Amino acid sequence: MALAVGVRVRARALLRAGAQFRGPVLGRPEPAAGGGDGTRRFANLRVLVEPDPAAGVAVMKLKSPPVNSLSLEFMTEFLISLEKLENDKAFRGVVITSDCPGVFSAGLDLTELCGQNPAHYTEYWKAVQELWLRLFLSNMVLVAAINGVCPAGGCLMALTCDVRVLADNPKFVIGLQETQLGIVAPFWLKDNLVNTIGHRASEHALQLGLLFPPAEALQVGIVDQVVPEDQLQSTALSVMARWMAIPDHARQLTKAMMRKATADSLIKHRDADIQNFVNFISRDSIQKTLQAYLQKLKQKKG
Amino acid sequence: MALAVGVRVRARALLRAGAQFRGPVLGRPEPAAGGGDGTRRFANLRVLVEPDPAAGVAVMKLKSPPVNSLSLEFMTEFLISLEKLENDKAFRGVVITSDCPGVFSAGLDLTELCGQNPAHYTEYWKAVQELWLRLFLSNMVLVAAINGVCPAGGCLMALTCDVRVLADNPKFVIGLQETQLGIVAPFWLKDNLVNTIGHRASEHALQLGLLFPPAEALQVGIVDQVVPEDQLQSTALSVMARWMAIPDHARQLTKAMMRKATADSLIKHRDADIQNFVNFISRDSIQKTLQAYLQKLKQKKG
Amino acid sequence: MALAVGVRVRARALLRAGAQFRGPVLGRPEPAAGGGDGTRRFANLRVLVEPDPAAGVAVMKLKSPPVNSLSLEFMTEFLISLEKLENDKAFRGVVITSDCPGVFSAGLDLTELCGQNPAHYTEYWKAVQELWLRLFLSNMVLVAAINGVCPAGGCLMALTCDVRVLADNPKFVIGLQETQLGIVAPFWLKDNLVNTIGHRASEHALQLGLLFPPAEALQVGIVDQVVPEDQLQSTALSVMARWMAIPDHARQLTKAMMRKATADSLIKHRDADIQNFVNFISRDSIQKTLQAYLQKLKQKKG
Repeated sequence: MALAVGVRVRARALLRAGAQFRGPVLGRPEPAAGGGDGTRRFANLRVLVEPDPAAGVAVMKLKSPPVNSLSLEFMTEFLISLEKLENDKAFRGVVITSDCPGVFSAGLDLTELCGQNPAHYTEYWKAVQELWLRLFLSNMVLVAAINGVCPAGGCLMALTCDVRVLADNPKFVIGLQETQLGIVAPFWLKDNLVNTIGHRASEHALQLGLLFPPAEALQVGIVDQVVPEDQLQSTALSVMARWMAIPDHARQLTKAMMRKATADSLIKHRDADIQNFVNFISRDSIQKTLQAYLQKLKQKKG
Repeated sequence: MALAVGVRVRARALLRAGAQFRGPVLGRPEPAAGGGDGTRRFANLRVLVEPDPAAGVAVMKLKSPPVNSLSLEFMTEFLISLEKLENDKAFRGVVITSDCPGVFSAGLDLTELCGQNPAHYTEYWKAVQELWLRLFLSNMVLVAAINGVCPAGGCLMALTCDVRVLADNPKFVIGLQETQLGIVAPFWLKDNLVNTIGHRASEHALQLGLLFPPAEALQVGIVDQVVPEDQLQSTALSVMARWMAIPDHARQLTKAMMRKATADSLIKHRDADIQNFVNFISRDSIQKTLQAYLQKLKQKKG
Repeated sequence: MALAVGVRVRARALLRAGAQFRGPVLGRPEPAAGGGDGTRRFANLRVLVEPDPAAGVAVMKLKSPPVNSLSLEFMTEFLISLEKLENDKAFRGVVITSDCPGVFSAGLDLTELCGQNPAHYTEYWKAVQELWLRLFLSNMVLVAAINGVCPAGGCLMALTCDVRVLADNPKFVIGLQETQLGIVAPFWLKDNLVNTIGHRASEHALQLGLLFPPAEALQVGIVDQVVPEDQLQSTALSVMARWMAIPDHARQLTKAMMRKATADSLIKHRDADIQNFVNFISRDSIQKTLQAYLQKLKQKKG
């Protein structure tokens, strides 16, 4: 498992570098309300963790309102919370879900991508890569309990999980709609999608920037199960229980065997991928498109 | 997009070399009948192009009777017509269909493969590779409107497209039946098929040389839609309209990302693939098989 | 086909080394009961071969009671019988089935994996690799007629075949349940599975160690057909007849084209794979798990 170790080292380096991040103090655990049942909750500002050590499972609730967009702060806090669980032998599985009604995650934070300098874009994209790598190679069982719309970066997080369960609400679409915004999904996320739904369906979905409503999402295989909204949490936990029954070491080696080549491909071309992203996002035409889109979003809200 | 440029250069070199091709003068556009609506049709001898610049779409009708077999002349004319569209910014999408009743394309032209010399086989196979590469890497959206039988080389053309719509006629079978004739599909076409229908279905289909009737073709995924014959054209155009709605640049980069590895594999081994083909087709046993088959076809006609 | 030749040479070397194998005299053909119809049966101690030279087909019945586990002796005898058929031009296809009621093969022989020394584990794993390589690259058409439970090593044998037909009995499960025993399927068997059922289904099945009953096996694609038990043999033979209709040479080249990369991957990393297996199986924790499991099996029997 040299690979996973290598990744973790890099992750720590990133998180040390996190001192440069604008924003709140990181990693400050907060005592939670409950406690009589032996559980204790802890939270960063943007991620709420509900541990159930008896089951070996924690629920991570994304709580970066209004739409859990992937800001640098959010990603950093998420990765710190994830690493805490990864390093705590009491936890073997994590359910990832959202605390923001109707939205799992809206994806990349456009304010990070508009009107910033190349150094910022570099830092941002490195964090996105890291988020994907750390989730994709996690030794824990990850189950996504998708309780809201799940486009782009939200879909990125879901695709790294071992199982995806989607709440059956026609508004809860999932997919990589990058082309619709004039941008392109990175190659490693494309690889992740191809592994999940196959080459042909990926070519189709990525070129058209498709967002799948529940029934189609299930049919194409981008999620594993669709359940009524009020059964999402319980289904995620019972799926998790099934995975918990497998000996960790054999399961982890098997997971690494399935995923190593795909992760290595990013690790090998990481700098080129950053350079490619920074060049692309810095273009005038892309900046104009994104700013227009951002303006539209603001007007909607306002 | 260095790759696509490289391919295009090679394509031009081939087409310049086309002066050596037996046959009619190439690339002579002909004014078409209509015109009052602002469209103009142009045609080589074997490819009829019906442009709709307002929509950004052209329909290419294969017109090399009786069965649109892939003769050197036909492939050369087709590639010249395709390149014209590719270089004309007015066109972003092409519907490929047949002007020969009941036949999309019967595939390789057996008269090019029987009783000729190695130099001819070399030239021929290079043209087949080029046809595939140029279609497979086209920057335009390609939709195959398959209105007839579509074996071997016909299927090769269809598989390069972004979408395949098949007219619902039990006679309109599609597939790579090479093994049934005692020959073998090239590795890059195998890769294209694997990308389309998966590894297991490809192994099965290629070993048995399966030709799929419409319902089976849809089920295995070698076509995307099956529609009544009289709705083929309109369906192809409405599918195209959906693809036209995606920003070109992002779609083209995404398409290249999905297809580059497969195309590179041929580009890297192109000469070896030609040598392999020439050696194989020159064998006495293969020549005998093909000549017997050709004789049978002639008797059928006669 | 240099590859296949190379593999065969290695196979012979292994089988010569078979003199070291504990156990009965190998390769002693026995005259069979029948004969008036021109067929002759021959058998090693653990594999019964029923040839039908008129059809070009032989049926190999695994007969190593009680459960056809993959002992060194069994694998050696099986490979000798297979090689005889492979070298006899009269035979172009083999149906592999079981002579042990209710069990196709229970998989690896745990007694070979418990309390032995590294040299033995090395020899054993080399034989498992060889079994897979020889079946996977066979020039003959292989049809698995699965008439019993088919886990782990049994599934390994079935996955190498060109077609898998499963008898419709809810007890006849098939899959790679290694993780449930705390061990990990080798990477080349993972590749074989991915080629068969796709990446996502493989990730799911391998991590959970799933054993699929007939309907699920068909749905996930780990078998091609499920038929009533009393029609298994006849279905396998009629499937075989269809494959026999394809010219051998073209079919063999096509099969090699589909499988070469997967086989090469093992051939290239063969020694590392052995070393990896020997290190893993020699661990105290694994030995304890396997011995406990073996003990449980013995108590069940006793």
